[in-house]
Amino acid sequence: MGEDMAAAQRYEVRPVAWVESPLKQLAQAPNQGREGAPPAWLAVEPDLAEAIRDLRAGQQILVLTWLDRARRDELACVPGDNPGSPPLGVFSTRSPNRPNPIGVHRARILAVEGLRIQVSELEVLDRTPVIDIKPVLDQVAER
Amino acid sequence: MGEDMAAAQRYEVRPVAWVESPLKQLAQAPNQGREGAPPAWLAVEPDLAEAIRDLRAGQQILVLTWLDRARRDELACVPGDNPGSPPLGVFSTRSPNRPNPIGVHRARILAVEGLRIQVSELEVLDRTPVIDIKPVLDQVAER
Repeated sequence: MGEDMAAAQRYEVRPVAWVESPLKQLAQAPNQGREGAPPAWLAVEPDLAEAIRDLRAGQQILVLTWLDRARRDELACVPGDNPGSPPLGVFSTRSPNRPNPIGVHRARILAVEGLRIQVSELEVLDRTPVIDIKPVLDQVAER
Repeated sequence: MGEDMAAAQRYEVRPVAWVESPLKQLAQAPNQGREGAPPAWLAVEPDLAEAIRDLRAGQQILVLTWLDRARRDELACVPGDNPGSPPLGVFSTRSPNRPNPIGVHRARILAVEGLRIQVSELEVLDRTPVIDIKPVLDQVAER
């Protein structure tokens, strides 16, 4: 692929579910779950019922989110967990502000009720789009 | 947000880098690195030089890819690592075929040369777009 084509290439992401969380504002959102985060519900899009049919309470999953209130033009930032640090390139941080504002969160399924999945400790804002759900491959702390 | 608006919402992902790998065809691609995968290079887009400036050899990272040769309309599949299994909903598998074909790969940085980053064991095809790079938060096996 030529340089020009590569630079122009874009892909379209669709929501597969939406987060329902008591976290309504950025100031309430904890940092990568280290400070604790409340359980949340994932409301799955109806056309994807088949894709979630084998999810069960107790399973460990990765939840990928599209952090739609983030800035995409920030390339360096001071890490939220170390305010005395000099700025770091964003690919060395978990900042939501990054070229593609994707969050990767490890969570445990607490309940499944039809198209709604309750998960533990999801540190994202209410109404955030979910863009993928994956099983955790190794049953060790992954986040 | 109303149901209709939610269903229609889409987001635009841009490549932040491109994979350069000896894996050229799907038949060669191993399954989530369990069978071993060769090192690969990530060729970072020039406008994002600042975002990678703190990446160093030895660091453990998550590489998120856009698996652009995958099918997006498959909602259940037989897991590649267990061909005798009945089909599972795709959100219970790591299949590349899923509504948003995003791969999450743990890798170690082997070298950084300008805009090129060499990583260990990346089980994706040559020319696959990279859409994010994140530091691993816990220094334990994560994939």
